[in-house]
Amino acid sequence: MKTKKVTMVRIYCTEGQGKLKEMLSRLHDDYKVSGVTVFRGVAGFGASGQLHSSSLLDISLDLPQVIEFFDEQDKIAEILAELADSFKPGHVVSWQAEVNI
Amino acid sequence: MKTKKVTMVRIYCTEGQGKLKEMLSRLHDDYKVSGVTVFRGVAGFGASGQLHSSSLLDISLDLPQVIEFFDEQDKIAEILAELADSFKPGHVVSWQAEVNI
Amino acid sequence: MKTKKVTMVRIYCTEGQGKLKEMLSRLHDDYKVSGVTVFRGVAGFGASGQLHSSSLLDISLDLPQVIEFFDEQDKIAEILAELADSFKPGHVVSWQAEVNI
Repeated sequence: MKTKKVTMVRIYCTEGQGKLKEMLSRLHDDYKVSGVTVFRGVAGFGASGQLHSSSLLDISLDLPQVIEFFDEQDKIAEILAELADSFKPGHVVSWQAEVNI
Repeated sequence: MKTKKVTMVRIYCTEGQGKLKEMLSRLHDDYKVSGVTVFRGVAGFGASGQLHSSSLLDISLDLPQVIEFFDEQDKIAEILAELADSFKPGHVVSWQAEVNI
Repeated sequence: MKTKKVTMVRIYCTEGQGKLKEMLSRLHDDYKVSGVTVFRGVAGFGASGQLHSSSLLDISLDLPQVIEFFDEQDKIAEILAELADSFKPGHVVSWQAEVNI
């Protein structure tokens, strides 16, 4: 399988922050990244230590949310530079990977 | 913790493509990979730019789906070589990792 | 964007094992990792080859579950050393990444 190098990004936020719609719009319209997937966690905690969880008896409206995308390394570097101010430290993780071409 | 090197793979498709059953069967029966997990995204878009999302009012039948698995590097390289024709460019991401032994 | 090096960890278990609560508690109280997110898969199989899946007609109580967290490399190495006995081989995957600071 032929591949090219990409940078994977995972941005950690919570549903309550309401950042998803704006982020999807920027990644789609402004940066035209080739693909984005959003996942909802069923439990989690952040730097505050406060637990966010869901259960049948206790539906939380502030579940963890992960925005995942990847694209060529230079493009991602530019995107992350512009997004840096939108997220607190410790919320944007990235690493090198390869994608089929 | 003792570890060995593995390659992680994430394959991005959508529920509407109906590839999941065949892929799980191949990974399980033909390739005997040591483990596979399938995740469903709550929103996303691909190269087409078309948004796939779910909401209480608008249940989509074409949500993003990620098939994740890992195994030894040589084994994954063989599997990806055989699977290359099954997926469009930009849908199979892989990277190096370590797993406990 | 300024970053520091971290190790990402994904621990694969199933809901039926009931390990989640204990693990979240240890990661939160004992190790004070800066963030943990738990994801539930919609299908999967492990080394046993037995398929775990959910469908509208067949709600499984043993779906795959992934506990994901990241922190500085030395800290994660210590945590994994202590957790090694809690998980069978092939269930704790880790790799190097970067996080915004």
